[in-house]
Amino acid sequence: MRAVVMHAPGDVRVDTLDKPTIVEPTDAIIRVTAACICGSDLWPFRGIEEVNQPTPMGHEYIGVVDEVGDEVGDIEVGDFVVGSFVASDNTCEICQAGFQSRCIHQVMMGSIGTQADYARIPLADGTLVKVFGEPTPEQTRSLLAASDVLGTGWFAAVAAEAGPGKSVAVVGDGAVGLLAILAAKQLGADRIIAMSRHADRQALAKKFGATDIVEERGKVGVAKIKELTGGYGAHSTVEAVGTQESMLQAIGATRPGGHVGYVGVSHGVELDGLDLFFATVSLLGGPAPVRRFLPELVDLIMTDQIDPGIVFDLEVPIEDAAEGYKAMDERRATKVLLTL
Amino acid sequence: MRAVVMHAPGDVRVDTLDKPTIVEPTDAIIRVTAACICGSDLWPFRGIEEVNQPTPMGHEYIGVVDEVGDEVGDIEVGDFVVGSFVASDNTCEICQAGFQSRCIHQVMMGSIGTQADYARIPLADGTLVKVFGEPTPEQTRSLLAASDVLGTGWFAAVAAEAGPGKSVAVVGDGAVGLLAILAAKQLGADRIIAMSRHADRQALAKKFGATDIVEERGKVGVAKIKELTGGYGAHSTVEAVGTQESMLQAIGATRPGGHVGYVGVSHGVELDGLDLFFATVSLLGGPAPVRRFLPELVDLIMTDQIDPGIVFDLEVPIEDAAEGYKAMDERRATKVLLTL
Repeated sequence: MRAVVMHAPGDVRVDTLDKPTIVEPTDAIIRVTAACICGSDLWPFRGIEEVNQPTPMGHEYIGVVDEVGDEVGDIEVGDFVVGSFVASDNTCEICQAGFQSRCIHQVMMGSIGTQADYARIPLADGTLVKVFGEPTPEQTRSLLAASDVLGTGWFAAVAAEAGPGKSVAVVGDGAVGLLAILAAKQLGADRIIAMSRHADRQALAKKFGATDIVEERGKVGVAKIKELTGGYGAHSTVEAVGTQESMLQAIGATRPGGHVGYVGVSHGVELDGLDLFFATVSLLGGPAPVRRFLPELVDLIMTDQIDPGIVFDLEVPIEDAAEGYKAMDERRATKVLLTL
Repeated sequence: MRAVVMHAPGDVRVDTLDKPTIVEPTDAIIRVTAACICGSDLWPFRGIEEVNQPTPMGHEYIGVVDEVGDEVGDIEVGDFVVGSFVASDNTCEICQAGFQSRCIHQVMMGSIGTQADYARIPLADGTLVKVFGEPTPEQTRSLLAASDVLGTGWFAAVAAEAGPGKSVAVVGDGAVGLLAILAAKQLGADRIIAMSRHADRQALAKKFGATDIVEERGKVGVAKIKELTGGYGAHSTVEAVGTQESMLQAIGATRPGGHVGYVGVSHGVELDGLDLFFATVSLLGGPAPVRRFLPELVDLIMTDQIDPGIVFDLEVPIEDAAEGYKAMDERRATKVLLTL
């Protein structure tokens, strides 16, 4: 089968690999119908994370179940499914509390790779959500977004306690930040301030529900957020980048007693304890428990209440995956969909 | 009037200072009837915080209102009152959201000093809570505890979301940690694990509601907490020390999706962003908004539902304040009450 493999920073190829097989009786094999390139795939692409060996890429996916292990009960061959980037049993206490991304049996899908014709999905019953009905092309793209960027943005907005009566600041205008805006809007936030300096992303931010745009960064950006929120700072702030600057910007933009939801994978972030102490904000973040939100998100998508799929601004066949990586790396594309 | 003044690390004296006067029309002057020495007073006493000039000490207090400014309305001369270690207007959006310790007009009482015969209380209407009825000696000690250590422990337990069905771990067996145990018990927690290696404090922890004691620290302590909580870690963890070790112990002891309430004033704490990301716990801490809880705490104390005052294990007249500081520094006392 075809599979995207990173051989070194900047060196992404489509190799021919063996089709995966059932390893555990709780596995399913899916035929991937669409996958995508994630902002986090750019860390190794840019050499910020090491690439020690040829590595199959991808952790977002939708597809059709091709085969199931003996202990798979709910998911059946032929089902059209979506799952998150973390496989989870959905039964342990951590999953039951809504933190499936930290399931005690978790398997990171990035360690398997879903930018491929087929993918093995561990813990299929706990991981996969069946989609009923026949999705339109638009719905299909949105379902793929739900697999990570929408689910992650949604978690960030929930972790930041976005809701009615709240002002929400969003740091980061990548796909996750943009979809956190959609989530905040859906959750009923009054005011949504997007921090962005790219015209195309500002336009999408407004489309998703941003009421204000702040182009400034750092301390000036923080001051601007305070100015827009009565001097207090935002009630809720989403951090969707993962750098020291973005994290301090998010904490600084939040009023005492407010909430920061951070989902940018941290790279070089160090938080000073005393600064954090006197910030007096709630911090919750980490790998998003997308599985918690998937049934609701699938429903919102299949009833056309949300349209997160418009975040994909480039679509390429899997053979051209390298071009997709380059386009995202060079910021020519916000989010790339791979067709199979 | 008599006032405790720190001249240098280890050098605490009782000096004669002028009686304070009304500065702002929102001020009150109280005659302090009891004050105490705080664990945080030990940082400068031990030279970990600098002492650049003779510094009036103390931020915990109960007393009788002696004089009020022209704009004070609710508080009257003769009222018996308790207040928190942060003066706050109790009307700004931050106060109204329950974070009075970060009021936009906040004044730290430590910058004024309450280990003295009299103290100026800024923003008296917002800061002070009137106590109705005649407190017994036991209730008086408990009211004094409410001013900081009880209120701070209570906030930590609330920030950690202690409650029914929850396992709560408490890092730190000083007065705040011990009273966080009382708070967790009062909030309905099922299991309360005190991390302590001092027999006298273990006894008090059990008296306040601890169901388990863990003497181990660091990674071994964390492993022990996991062992006691089905392998998952505590739902809720209170951090009441403020060191790197205690903070990492608290985060490590908490299950993914759990909550850490941290109230130990950070000294040298640096949190690695990626470790925090993958811990996937909620962090909320800082100077406790004691004022939020004071009316409820006063009520619980005056109706004898809680007895936090037993945390005081040494009582000395203000003239012997130096001995009180030494006793706490040498861990001969957990919490010292100063009589006036």
